[in-house]
Amino acid sequence: MHDYLIAPSILAADLAKLGQEVDDVLVAGADIIHFDVMDNHYVPNLTFGPSVCAALRKHGVTAPIDVHLMVKPVDALIGMFADAGASWITFHPEASEHVDRSLAMIKERGLKAGLVLNPATPLTHLEYVLDKLDVVLLMSVNPGFGGQKFIPGTLDKIAATRAYLDARGAQHVRIEVDGGVGPGNIAEVASRGADSFVAGSAIFGQPDYKVVVDRMRQALAGQ
Amino acid sequence: MHDYLIAPSILAADLAKLGQEVDDVLVAGADIIHFDVMDNHYVPNLTFGPSVCAALRKHGVTAPIDVHLMVKPVDALIGMFADAGASWITFHPEASEHVDRSLAMIKERGLKAGLVLNPATPLTHLEYVLDKLDVVLLMSVNPGFGGQKFIPGTLDKIAATRAYLDARGAQHVRIEVDGGVGPGNIAEVASRGADSFVAGSAIFGQPDYKVVVDRMRQALAGQ
Amino acid sequence: MHDYLIAPSILAADLAKLGQEVDDVLVAGADIIHFDVMDNHYVPNLTFGPSVCAALRKHGVTAPIDVHLMVKPVDALIGMFADAGASWITFHPEASEHVDRSLAMIKERGLKAGLVLNPATPLTHLEYVLDKLDVVLLMSVNPGFGGQKFIPGTLDKIAATRAYLDARGAQHVRIEVDGGVGPGNIAEVASRGADSFVAGSAIFGQPDYKVVVDRMRQALAGQ
Amino acid sequence: MHDYLIAPSILAADLAKLGQEVDDVLVAGADIIHFDVMDNHYVPNLTFGPSVCAALRKHGVTAPIDVHLMVKPVDALIGMFADAGASWITFHPEASEHVDRSLAMIKERGLKAGLVLNPATPLTHLEYVLDKLDVVLLMSVNPGFGGQKFIPGTLDKIAATRAYLDARGAQHVRIEVDGGVGPGNIAEVASRGADSFVAGSAIFGQPDYKVVVDRMRQALAGQ
Amino acid sequence: MHDYLIAPSILAADLAKLGQEVDDVLVAGADIIHFDVMDNHYVPNLTFGPSVCAALRKHGVTAPIDVHLMVKPVDALIGMFADAGASWITFHPEASEHVDRSLAMIKERGLKAGLVLNPATPLTHLEYVLDKLDVVLLMSVNPGFGGQKFIPGTLDKIAATRAYLDARGAQHVRIEVDGGVGPGNIAEVASRGADSFVAGSAIFGQPDYKVVVDRMRQALAGQ
Amino acid sequence: MHDYLIAPSILAADLAKLGQEVDDVLVAGADIIHFDVMDNHYVPNLTFGPSVCAALRKHGVTAPIDVHLMVKPVDALIGMFADAGASWITFHPEASEHVDRSLAMIKERGLKAGLVLNPATPLTHLEYVLDKLDVVLLMSVNPGFGGQKFIPGTLDKIAATRAYLDARGAQHVRIEVDGGVGPGNIAEVASRGADSFVAGSAIFGQPDYKVVVDRMRQALAGQ
Repeated sequence: MHDYLIAPSILAADLAKLGQEVDDVLVAGADIIHFDVMDNHYVPNLTFGPSVCAALRKHGVTAPIDVHLMVKPVDALIGMFADAGASWITFHPEASEHVDRSLAMIKERGLKAGLVLNPATPLTHLEYVLDKLDVVLLMSVNPGFGGQKFIPGTLDKIAATRAYLDARGAQHVRIEVDGGVGPGNIAEVASRGADSFVAGSAIFGQPDYKVVVDRMRQALAGQ
Repeated sequence: MHDYLIAPSILAADLAKLGQEVDDVLVAGADIIHFDVMDNHYVPNLTFGPSVCAALRKHGVTAPIDVHLMVKPVDALIGMFADAGASWITFHPEASEHVDRSLAMIKERGLKAGLVLNPATPLTHLEYVLDKLDVVLLMSVNPGFGGQKFIPGTLDKIAATRAYLDARGAQHVRIEVDGGVGPGNIAEVASRGADSFVAGSAIFGQPDYKVVVDRMRQALAGQ
Repeated sequence: MHDYLIAPSILAADLAKLGQEVDDVLVAGADIIHFDVMDNHYVPNLTFGPSVCAALRKHGVTAPIDVHLMVKPVDALIGMFADAGASWITFHPEASEHVDRSLAMIKERGLKAGLVLNPATPLTHLEYVLDKLDVVLLMSVNPGFGGQKFIPGTLDKIAATRAYLDARGAQHVRIEVDGGVGPGNIAEVASRGADSFVAGSAIFGQPDYKVVVDRMRQALAGQ
Repeated sequence: MHDYLIAPSILAADLAKLGQEVDDVLVAGADIIHFDVMDNHYVPNLTFGPSVCAALRKHGVTAPIDVHLMVKPVDALIGMFADAGASWITFHPEASEHVDRSLAMIKERGLKAGLVLNPATPLTHLEYVLDKLDVVLLMSVNPGFGGQKFIPGTLDKIAATRAYLDARGAQHVRIEVDGGVGPGNIAEVASRGADSFVAGSAIFGQPDYKVVVDRMRQALAGQ
Repeated sequence: MHDYLIAPSILAADLAKLGQEVDDVLVAGADIIHFDVMDNHYVPNLTFGPSVCAALRKHGVTAPIDVHLMVKPVDALIGMFADAGASWITFHPEASEHVDRSLAMIKERGLKAGLVLNPATPLTHLEYVLDKLDVVLLMSVNPGFGGQKFIPGTLDKIAATRAYLDARGAQHVRIEVDGGVGPGNIAEVASRGADSFVAGSAIFGQPDYKVVVDRMRQALAGQ
Repeated sequence: MHDYLIAPSILAADLAKLGQEVDDVLVAGADIIHFDVMDNHYVPNLTFGPSVCAALRKHGVTAPIDVHLMVKPVDALIGMFADAGASWITFHPEASEHVDRSLAMIKERGLKAGLVLNPATPLTHLEYVLDKLDVVLLMSVNPGFGGQKFIPGTLDKIAATRAYLDARGAQHVRIEVDGGVGPGNIAEVASRGADSFVAGSAIFGQPDYKVVVDRMRQALAGQ
């Protein structure tokens, strides 16, 4: 059983003072920092790249940085983000011609590797790379923008993914959920098998980050 | 004759405290903020997008923001940056199927529009859009990364561009130069006809921004 | 159990008098109009787009128009066809980066949505979007041109698809078959679980549309 | 000196009865039929392809059909439109990797060949293919949609193109203008050197096509 | 049960005397020649194309030539390689928009057809094309370069593929394995169900090809 | 004034014994080896890549190898061919987003650099990179295949290019011509200003290479 990780997405932070925002949310109790990279090709938006990640490291952030690549292709950015201080790198299998090689590139840099499944993407993409996975990131919204509502069908998909992994001896693989997660539904999301929770506007949209993180912890504890 | 504009490129700023950096460089005397957008398709790097621009506006920046799109295609990002508070938007003619329409989209939003010419790009791209141009941005390095050296042949190209514009009644069009410009060569760059000067590491790489900006002003005054 | 729908494909109609052709085939007893959109990128042919669909509506066609997008990407055309009067919109899952979002776009416009599976495409693409599907369109030829022969392996795939849907509580999802269907094989196609039948040259290639449609109805009744 | 050609664009016709529309506009005095092909890649719209052209020929249209390819790439469609009965084929030089070969393909089929210049496209693209050109089509709007307003700068570009061609011994090359042309400005457009005039909504948007065509002829005669 | 085929990959041969290399390896006992085609788009390398295949035929090679297309798209090269004397053509399902049609193109030329599965690619791609397959090529390295190490997880995938095919009545379909196979592991690879073995540097990197081929045969006989 | 260089294109050689072919043609008097790289994307054919170039060097070829990249994009292959022993590298300006950078990459490896102009490509692409050019390669056929006929308009383009270069102080830049050149027209091609002559089937299609090379030399001497 994995411990729970709360992963605030900086997509919703004040990008004019990002170092301070990240410091604040970590003090408030977050575990890792979720970093949403969009290239305006794989998704219809462009956010931030390796230089922003490197700036956080230079600023003094030591918590894990969980880089979610919403880009196509992925290989060149894997190298750039490894140099920039990423701790986890996840990408969409449809976005790489050679998924096994992209995962191997991440592992060879000593980082945690994962695949991201869009709401419609089936689990079959996981079958032959289980030995290279540390995490499966399930999208509970369609990627591209913050502030969307959680797609209800994701709950069953979380359970199916946990069962799929466990049945293949991959209990060690984490399940992270991204999109529309907050204090109100985190317990249910966890109850189906997720252990890592991305939250953007649910945290950064509130005046006191600690209050939200505490509410998420309490909900997790109470389930 | 245009007044001189000093345009610090935030590519070289501390991105963990970007609002502060922009405030500081404006207090130090900069005129406009140069905003380098890269998508890892038109250039081999990914920087930052509309949400970072919007964050600067929300932070209180009122100076003009000069958005340089190193992306392909360009039209969707023009709309997003107009919404995000851009003041100028420039793009590369090779990156748009319909250059006249892309320029018109910028003008219809009430913004200043420009084309960017790579070191090897000829002036012929300007011929039939002079009436829609506010600025021509001449690259004095190949775009994609900060910290490169000024390509010497750019000096003649600046002069040729100024002559080309003036000969066609387009005296009102600014000439901006981007790449390897600093206190040491700004006077020469200006002497050939440039009036707007992007400087990244030359400013943000120094401990006191005002000292650099003042040296650039003095060099301009002394030519 | 679904009622049977006969869906003449206008690909085989006389495009110089399309309004009349559609009127005639509806009078002859067709249920819906199948509209094959090709962009010369997803398939090696280009047919017709939203303005032709809108012209049929303006002409007075009130029957459902079933738009099959053989294009890549799909999202912009979904909006254009919704504006042009489409009733159903189906697309190929390989042609959209974000299948769930594309389906949601169709549903949000109040239209029926579906996925199209090429002869070689497996059913796994359906797994996590069953709640957004109204129809699965199974290609019984490779898309791109009219007049091809029915691929026999499709018969087993129809049965497998019906079983797959029923086993997941998706009895409400229709199965439409496209390619090489006519009076001679429609009963067998229906017997395996299809309920909607696209027919192009089988109908429009004959002198009397009513005779063909009646023969198809009789074959369906007699199975 | 070329005789004047009036070329109604079927983009604005009633596409539900296209054969009749084309018959009517030819009876009204039009010289050639302008056929706007869009693929939703080179331009953000999709119109109609070779099968619609073939349907017009089968319907009995014997007038020249002037096919304007707003597609990328172009070579495969050149062959398909030659088979479908095109008389002229024009394309955008930015849309073909090998412009000389694409032009040669058109000429080898015995058709008239031309290049289309977008509003921003310079004349330099013509320099080394003058011997393969029958027509230069100057866009006076950005391609993609009907009903746009004539870009005034086109007038000078027409004159510059005529002078460019004549200076190189290419008096035989026609100049066609497309976008926002109608009875109100056709005389001025002709006075600068154009000899072929595409008109869409100006003709098909009016109740009596002959009245419009006659007004265009009178305007041309009176200049 | 299939007889074993040893398939030297010319990727590792001396390309300055390829005819002689192929003659030598066939005399040494190889069964078929494996021909690795890379286009620098599907994989990050470019090797050789149809003219090299045709040269081998003209040189007098009569053994089967097994063409592995690591290219995207595939259809045009299928035709060129059929003309150039290929005996087998295999391609990656992710590299063709219309997998069934691409397979049919190969079969219509009278050649053996196959799909290639990358290390991460699941078996679901095979489900609806079993009747068109002669061979499944399982990559035991990520394609693009010679000299890589065998990915251990491939062993289980070979067994799973054999079981998958047999369970569906496709005992006739061969299983070929490519990447890091040599005398040291060929017996184990065969024991799991492979029957065709690509070997590049394992053969061409040795001074005496016959010694290696004999060792491979002995290992196969001894399992 | 440049000395004349005869550059046999190995496209037309016997690729089954390429080392011997290159040895023979050098003994016959050729000056440099022309190496045509096609990727089936920039041109509709795929030929050979870096490993074939490296094989020639390993075989003992010491003559300059003149690599003509008919590929898009170009930068990755520049590095691979520099490693593989290329002496010259030329590419098409339309095939690189950053022409100045691609040229600089070649020069930094100590190689001769050039741009290739297709039959329809204007000279304007040369204007701002003259200081980085060693050669301009003018295509006298459309690239993609051997054995085509010389396009007559190339003769004037050669003269225009020579004049253009000389007028800008670029007398040192060579002019190479590729396509349909042989003993029958080499004198005329040279008389207009070319100094380097690619010949494929004209040489390799003949029984005695020395006879052809001698005839070319004599024709050059006699002009």
